[in-house]
Amino acid sequence: MAVNSPLPVASALKPVAGVDIGFAEAGIKKPNRKDVLVLKVAPTATVAGVFTLNRFCAAPVQIAKAHLAAARESGKPIAALLINTGNANAGTGELGLSLANETCAALAAQLGCEPSQILPFSTGVILEPLPAAKVIAGLPQAIAGLKADNWYNAAEAIMTTDTQPKAGSRTVTIGGHTVTMSGISKGAGMIKPNMATMLGYLALDAKVAQPVLDVLVKQVADQSFNCITIDGDTSTNDSFILIATGAGALEVNSVDSPEYAELAAAVTELSLFLAQAIVRDGEGATKFITITVEEGGSVEECRKIAYSIGHSPLVKTAFFASDPNLGRILAAIGYAGVDLDVGKLNLYLDDVWVAKNGGRNPDYKEEDGQRVMKQSEITVRVKLARGAAAATVYTCDLSHDYVSINADYRS
Amino acid sequence: MAVNSPLPVASALKPVAGVDIGFAEAGIKKPNRKDVLVLKVAPTATVAGVFTLNRFCAAPVQIAKAHLAAARESGKPIAALLINTGNANAGTGELGLSLANETCAALAAQLGCEPSQILPFSTGVILEPLPAAKVIAGLPQAIAGLKADNWYNAAEAIMTTDTQPKAGSRTVTIGGHTVTMSGISKGAGMIKPNMATMLGYLALDAKVAQPVLDVLVKQVADQSFNCITIDGDTSTNDSFILIATGAGALEVNSVDSPEYAELAAAVTELSLFLAQAIVRDGEGATKFITITVEEGGSVEECRKIAYSIGHSPLVKTAFFASDPNLGRILAAIGYAGVDLDVGKLNLYLDDVWVAKNGGRNPDYKEEDGQRVMKQSEITVRVKLARGAAAATVYTCDLSHDYVSINADYRS
Repeated sequence: MAVNSPLPVASALKPVAGVDIGFAEAGIKKPNRKDVLVLKVAPTATVAGVFTLNRFCAAPVQIAKAHLAAARESGKPIAALLINTGNANAGTGELGLSLANETCAALAAQLGCEPSQILPFSTGVILEPLPAAKVIAGLPQAIAGLKADNWYNAAEAIMTTDTQPKAGSRTVTIGGHTVTMSGISKGAGMIKPNMATMLGYLALDAKVAQPVLDVLVKQVADQSFNCITIDGDTSTNDSFILIATGAGALEVNSVDSPEYAELAAAVTELSLFLAQAIVRDGEGATKFITITVEEGGSVEECRKIAYSIGHSPLVKTAFFASDPNLGRILAAIGYAGVDLDVGKLNLYLDDVWVAKNGGRNPDYKEEDGQRVMKQSEITVRVKLARGAAAATVYTCDLSHDYVSINADYRS
Repeated sequence: MAVNSPLPVASALKPVAGVDIGFAEAGIKKPNRKDVLVLKVAPTATVAGVFTLNRFCAAPVQIAKAHLAAARESGKPIAALLINTGNANAGTGELGLSLANETCAALAAQLGCEPSQILPFSTGVILEPLPAAKVIAGLPQAIAGLKADNWYNAAEAIMTTDTQPKAGSRTVTIGGHTVTMSGISKGAGMIKPNMATMLGYLALDAKVAQPVLDVLVKQVADQSFNCITIDGDTSTNDSFILIATGAGALEVNSVDSPEYAELAAAVTELSLFLAQAIVRDGEGATKFITITVEEGGSVEECRKIAYSIGHSPLVKTAFFASDPNLGRILAAIGYAGVDLDVGKLNLYLDDVWVAKNGGRNPDYKEEDGQRVMKQSEITVRVKLARGAAAATVYTCDLSHDYVSINADYRS
């Protein structure tokens, strides 16, 4: 059960003009579950993405990157995204590339475009061949059902071990124009994005020039999907895709415009919501932890320390147990690989000042730590006294259920 | 229960001339358990150590390092090691240093030496003040019981969440002289040594010149205690200490001598046994995993990849479940931060060839992987096809019991 994460309400998810959504139950891994998703985008749309840095990046990731590059060169825009769950098509070598290309060709034939105008995505088990025939067999059903008001089904169709769909919509007014945006994401393990996250898709109806969208997608990912970790495992399939359909009135042609700044803030806010939803629904998660490292010499060192805390199994089991065994946090800070003078360091748990100048705060009381540890949302704040940089990372605890879920994943 | 790790037999542990051992039940954390240990060493002994790289290194680690340096400068040799469990005296600031110094002074007074001739060590909970008065109150009992034939009790006295004592003895003949060595170690969580491990102590009765022992302790640690990981958490208190009592006939005065090479091999063998014993008794461990990365461009990159596999919670839960979900191993290789051409990579599980040239081996059968995964000892072998370097790391699986043990540690 996700931590403080209410189910999205289908009627609150807004259609984005220029994106139609269809899905199928193709039986890729299990019957009777949505596992193929098609997002058809208007020819006016610009599309940009960020992808996993995992060297074993999946076949669809390699192809999606190549097709995005081809679209820029040929001027033939991306026509659709094709996503399947139940199989990651990763660690599958040449055969994997060939099977992913087959699915692109099949969808292209039915939509009347070229295979290079399709972006493929897969998520699920690694090292097993993609059942491409099943994906292809599901396409007619997905295409027949294409409609704009279908974001809730889209969110459900990309779930794997997620316990609930993750989706959100926002409407903002920028330069007098209304911009509508909707997005979906999925987790829920193998989460430590190294460029983007798992799968995340966000569409908006402004017209955003391609070079501007390329900058925007990276900027947004760095402030949202790249700030979360569940288990420190960077997936082979992480992808975050931003679609600007051009169907609305707003145009953004420069990253130096005030419109860009406003749009970036709005897209970042929704993306952070979607990223945090992944953490809240982390495998076995019972707590949502925000780790903020302040007063650092650089953002990089703040992130290193925040991730060191966020990845420590000992810290995460202490959160699970509501046990204020806070020395484990100091240990994780100490081995983060940053050349700290720990004698100046201060540690807070919400409003409780735990460690002062590198040692136990004389005023710290166990019952105060205990009170905070019992909460379902906790902020760890570390002050380094080295500078003005800061970074925040979001994570969850490590519970019995994490082990159960991952010991049983394929069964 | 430790994986394939028979209990040491007290009568098989050999006294090392020049080391006397005493212990006390000082009630530091719990009553009726050995928690203070004194190792008194002969004035002829040389002593060297390697310590945690954690920036939050514990007060006793800071003092032990300073006292080792002082002994070199003053010529006054180390007289005794003082070890307590139940409290790590880490994250304790100035007060921690002062309390650790008090315990050194108390032992020095009773042994008739200077406080700087005592090396203090602590292990247990972080961020809580050391009950120094209890340690000191236990010293008379420990000193009264000092005797050479006491290694089994020593191994028991340093246990924390260990389920069994870890100890071994070896006798080797080098240059016609018999060398007797005995060692102890303890784990069992917060194990990812960054210089040495948890606590490990090894004594031998050769006479080894100080500069030679300084080289030897680092060389041995790099090939034993620095090759293990349980949860990736580098402790604040890791220490490995090598004592050469000089009571025997062998003298080693140069690292270029054949005697050095033979002694190094023997000490490494026993240290690796003690290090592996920590992994076999890792918190909640049900499997012992050897990860070998071969054909690398450098030892450093092989270690990076081996640790990436050894730290992945997804890989470790798959081992726990005996589930040949081996794509998780490829994913961990892929995010290790090494710029690999994965198209040449081969992966073996014991004798089973799983991945060939970066994809699934066409001859690989699920039942073969399943057979190996059911074993209690498994070797993961990765061949990079990049060079001639290799590295091996030892680890264990991630089980429900790991979570239980660490969620309940302080209760």
